[in-house]
Amino acid sequence: MRSVFVDLSAQECRDRIAAGGVGRVAFCGPDGPELYPVNFTVVDGHVVFRVAPYTRLGMGIDGRPVVFEVDDLDAERRSGWSVVVKGTARAVEDPDETASLRRRGPEPWAPGQRQQFVRVSTLRASGRHVVAG
Amino acid sequence: MRSVFVDLSAQECRDRIAAGGVGRVAFCGPDGPELYPVNFTVVDGHVVFRVAPYTRLGMGIDGRPVVFEVDDLDAERRSGWSVVVKGTARAVEDPDETASLRRRGPEPWAPGQRQQFVRVSTLRASGRHVVAG
Repeated sequence: MRSVFVDLSAQECRDRIAAGGVGRVAFCGPDGPELYPVNFTVVDGHVVFRVAPYTRLGMGIDGRPVVFEVDDLDAERRSGWSVVVKGTARAVEDPDETASLRRRGPEPWAPGQRQQFVRVSTLRASGRHVVAG
Repeated sequence: MRSVFVDLSAQECRDRIAAGGVGRVAFCGPDGPELYPVNFTVVDGHVVFRVAPYTRLGMGIDGRPVVFEVDDLDAERRSGWSVVVKGTARAVEDPDETASLRRRGPEPWAPGQRQQFVRVSTLRASGRHVVAG
C-alpha cells in the first residue's frame, strides 16, 4: 500500500479546521517544547481555545510563537489530512472580546475551568491530504 | 455536560501508546516551535518514527528535546485520552539498529520515503483520561 501526499491550498486548510474540534498547540517554553491538546473553534478566521490562567500552559503561552495542528489521520488506511497553523498566541484581555468569545468561542469540557481565551494570530497555514493509493 | 479529567499512571500511558499509530512531535527549531504529525511504533519502550533526512524535520530534530503526543479525543462526546512523552530525539545512526528498525519500526506511508529513523529517549510520560460525566 502506498499513500500519496497532496498539499492543501490555504482555503482548503481554512475549510478543514472551520468546524473546530480537537487540536494541539505547541510552543517553546522556558524549559523547552510544550505541547497540549485543546478543543478549539475558529472565530473571525482565528483559532481560539481556552486555558486555565494559572497553569503552565496559561502562564506560558501569551505572546509566544505557536504551532497549532489539527488532523484526521487513519493509521490503518494510511490516509487522512493534517493542517498546521503558525502564528502568535495572544491572551484575550479585552472584556468585550471575552464576552463575545463566551458566546462564540469553545466551551470548556469541564464547567468553571479554563476561563482565559487565547487567540492565535495566524501567520500562515499549511496542510496535506494523504490518499491511500 | 461536564467532563472529568483523570491522570493516567506511567503504566497506563505506556499501554495506551504501545500499539503505535499516529502521533505528533514538537520541538524548538532555530525559527521557533515546530510540530509534525508522524506515524510511530514503540520499540523496546521507545517511540520510534521516520523522517526524510534532508527536510526541515529530518535535519532539525536530532539531539533536541521533544514532546511527543498521542490522543484519541472525541470533541462531540468530550471524552477520550491523551498521552504526552517528553524526551530527546536521536537520529538512529547505527546500521544494526537501523536494520532492526526496518523490521520492527514503523513503515513509511509512501515507499522510498523517510529513510531515517528517530528514537525518542523518554524522560517522562504523562497522560489524562477524559470521561464525559
